[in-house]
Amino acid sequence: MIKHIAMMRWHEDTTDEQIEQVKAALATMPGLIPQIKSYVFGSDLELSEGTADFAVVADFDSVEDYRIYSDDQRHKDIITAHILPIVDQTYRVQLTVD
Amino acid sequence: MIKHIAMMRWHEDTTDEQIEQVKAALATMPGLIPQIKSYVFGSDLELSEGTADFAVVADFDSVEDYRIYSDDQRHKDIITAHILPIVDQTYRVQLTVD
Repeated sequence: MIKHIAMMRWHEDTTDEQIEQVKAALATMPGLIPQIKSYVFGSDLELSEGTADFAVVADFDSVEDYRIYSDDQRHKDIITAHILPIVDQTYRVQLTVD
Repeated sequence: MIKHIAMMRWHEDTTDEQIEQVKAALATMPGLIPQIKSYVFGSDLELSEGTADFAVVADFDSVEDYRIYSDDQRHKDIITAHILPIVDQTYRVQLTVD
């Protein structure tokens, strides 16, 4: 299985409403892209200093399925409309997991 | 459920052997800390530019259980012995997920 992780830091002036819009948009993804096997996301719980602000964790059966998600125009549209306006840094990784 | 994610960038001169030592040490964690409900980790697949080098994803039933892991001396010893010597950057986040 392929696990894709994206972690974001938002701009300091990001509003709760903007973050809710990101969550609402991301929540549509699993219904649009059947290659997504698991999809969780949310805001950091602020349990410790220096953490990022938000993360998305998505599982796929294969690299090809991950690329279908990554390249999907509806996914790109969410990034353009809701994430790029508020994101300061994004950190990404893709792993193979059992 | 609490999902803890740590993403690392290693120093450029990090060797494959050092990364294998990190993996071997992390693999002991679930057997030592029963509060860990799921534990996956591994090196980035290098599917795209700019990704981090490694990630750990751990699930816990509660914040208290996450803190037992986070504060466990054996966990701290692995960080000191195997991760701190080779890590350049670490990015962390903790989420509540269904």
